[in-house]
Amino acid sequence: MNTEGLLAQRIVNIKSSAIRELLKHSKMEQVISLAGGIPSDALFDFEGLSIATQQAISEQPKSAFQYGLTEGSPLLRERICALCQQRGVFAQPDDVLITAGSQQALDLVMRALVNPGDLFVVERPTYLAALQTLELAEANILSVGSDSDGMRVDELEQLLKTHKIKGVYVVPNFGNPSGLTLSLERREQLVKLAVEHNFLIIEDDPYGELRFSDERHTTLYQVSQQLFGHCENIIYTSSFSKILAPGLRLGWAILPPFLLQKVAIIKQAADLHASALSQSIVECYLGLDRLPAQIEKIRAVYRQKCQILADLLQQQLGDVISFDMPKGGMFLWVRFRQPFNATEWLQETLKQGVVFVPGEYFFAEQPDRSTFRLSFATASEAQMQEAVARLRRAL
Amino acid sequence: MNTEGLLAQRIVNIKSSAIRELLKHSKMEQVISLAGGIPSDALFDFEGLSIATQQAISEQPKSAFQYGLTEGSPLLRERICALCQQRGVFAQPDDVLITAGSQQALDLVMRALVNPGDLFVVERPTYLAALQTLELAEANILSVGSDSDGMRVDELEQLLKTHKIKGVYVVPNFGNPSGLTLSLERREQLVKLAVEHNFLIIEDDPYGELRFSDERHTTLYQVSQQLFGHCENIIYTSSFSKILAPGLRLGWAILPPFLLQKVAIIKQAADLHASALSQSIVECYLGLDRLPAQIEKIRAVYRQKCQILADLLQQQLGDVISFDMPKGGMFLWVRFRQPFNATEWLQETLKQGVVFVPGEYFFAEQPDRSTFRLSFATASEAQMQEAVARLRRAL
Repeated sequence: MNTEGLLAQRIVNIKSSAIRELLKHSKMEQVISLAGGIPSDALFDFEGLSIATQQAISEQPKSAFQYGLTEGSPLLRERICALCQQRGVFAQPDDVLITAGSQQALDLVMRALVNPGDLFVVERPTYLAALQTLELAEANILSVGSDSDGMRVDELEQLLKTHKIKGVYVVPNFGNPSGLTLSLERREQLVKLAVEHNFLIIEDDPYGELRFSDERHTTLYQVSQQLFGHCENIIYTSSFSKILAPGLRLGWAILPPFLLQKVAIIKQAADLHASALSQSIVECYLGLDRLPAQIEKIRAVYRQKCQILADLLQQQLGDVISFDMPKGGMFLWVRFRQPFNATEWLQETLKQGVVFVPGEYFFAEQPDRSTFRLSFATASEAQMQEAVARLRRAL
Repeated sequence: MNTEGLLAQRIVNIKSSAIRELLKHSKMEQVISLAGGIPSDALFDFEGLSIATQQAISEQPKSAFQYGLTEGSPLLRERICALCQQRGVFAQPDDVLITAGSQQALDLVMRALVNPGDLFVVERPTYLAALQTLELAEANILSVGSDSDGMRVDELEQLLKTHKIKGVYVVPNFGNPSGLTLSLERREQLVKLAVEHNFLIIEDDPYGELRFSDERHTTLYQVSQQLFGHCENIIYTSSFSKILAPGLRLGWAILPPFLLQKVAIIKQAADLHASALSQSIVECYLGLDRLPAQIEKIRAVYRQKCQILADLLQQQLGDVISFDMPKGGMFLWVRFRQPFNATEWLQETLKQGVVFVPGEYFFAEQPDRSTFRLSFATASEAQMQEAVARLRRAL
């Protein structure tokens, strides 16, 4: 068969995710992985999930196994609103679209917004799979740098003087891969720019609950409400993947009304609706009121693991690398003090039996190859000790 | 906020599904719905689903709740192959991509194949949500008619003399909405055309197991294998929605290798993977070997219900309508003997308390407004009697 010309342009040049390929290595025996973006299943609340599952299939079997509404279960949309309120996101159930993880929310929103060639701005570095959704939508991706206060909103402001953009994608809390948190001042500045220049902000917040201190960061959604009395420029996305269980594939988007209706039409064509069973289970789980304790548990463990990994890196590699200490999340973003190609180095560390994600994959442009991402979520303390020793040996 | 120009062109002109709007009416009390495309949950194997769910969450909780592979669970891909073999689809596990219902398979495939303006051919009438995926991909949709032997492949042949097409979408078994089955001769002709003219066929087969007789129809996949020794031009899609439970959102596509890799990349950006819990449950369910009996049960009930509805229509409305008796599936496709606008008539039947789907929505072009679709899957015998009496009164 002549396959020439049969594929759509949007997919011809897209490569498989580097992380996807790396994860194959990470399944090899003896290899310690600090590469994955997966939560620790040692922390999953299997007991609570089991109770919720029993409840879902015994008390509401028809809802769990029959077709449902595209926007999602009404009760779950209500419960998500209650959850969001604690985060300073005051939305109504009608503003919520339930999706197959926040990943799907990103893809649906890009499809609803982006014409080929439209300008969309991301941070350097940024979430790899957000870049993929932008590439599939054939966006023209621009980027601005970041520092220890998160995205360089001043760079965005400069860029807006000469460019008309469709939107900005940002992870304000404990970014993936950067671990960075956007300062309040920059949050305000970013929202003001969105309103002034009439673009949309995708506020992607999968990690916000995983904070290591008790300080809550004001959401862009809330900033917009406070400054302008509306949130029309904000799309807030989040997920149950990092706080409950990713295998359920359940996340959500909070959208301005003009967009929700359109995104729901795309969602309907994309998969009709998110798993009704997953929705019933999470609905029941939230009813059990176990989530707050579950989040506390995850926070405490990740905080401790982050500290352990940071200390090990400091002790054993502090002469050659540096990093900002994250305030939450799952990732340490590391930079070599001298120019050094982390992608090439990975071949050496693989021989020693440790895998990470080279930083260059997280850049839409101007990749900083002296960087790499380590996850502290899944490895044990002993594994982290051994991994860092192996990294040292691979130098 | 000025929303002008913020939406992508692909979504600006798409309307919400008519069926979606209709289903709101169908939830009204006193209204009998023959509109939905949903299976009867009275027939769901709740006992088997419950056993499989228990098994999934007790025996393999980590697989059920953690992230999984984009292509799907290896064991489930194997079991789907075994299922497909009985249908004459001889594929390998590596050829299978597990999706969120076959709906997602359609959407992913269209995104992988269709550039804006590419020609894609469907039947008149055809599955509404397939049209939506084509519209979102900005295909130029052409159509060919159908008769009691299914799609008019001779019309396609004519069309190919002057048009270079990307693909054909067809439901060969008990089509939605037509209920029609493609004859073997036309299946062969269609596959030959695909190979000769180098286009792809999407063989969408959600209803194939719901046959009313013991006659199995040879799949296009098998026809291609027999005629050419390969299936490179065939994308076979199917689903657990009509034979097990749609709320799990689980279907699959069998794809030629050059396409599977690309579709998996899109799938990864779209939602990472299908619900791991749903996959574990179906894996366990298939292991219980209850599916064959379950399918037998559904077939028997639907066959009987189809006959009841057909008899009622014949008796009470036979003077004004006609229809082909379907050989399986969930739908009766009805045509007025004289020109008559079924969409307008719906307003009358709603006053009488019965809802159906007007035929015009199933046409990409040249809508036949004298047609409408009735589902016999969910209504009881008493409801069907009352519904047909109401239809009579609404005339």
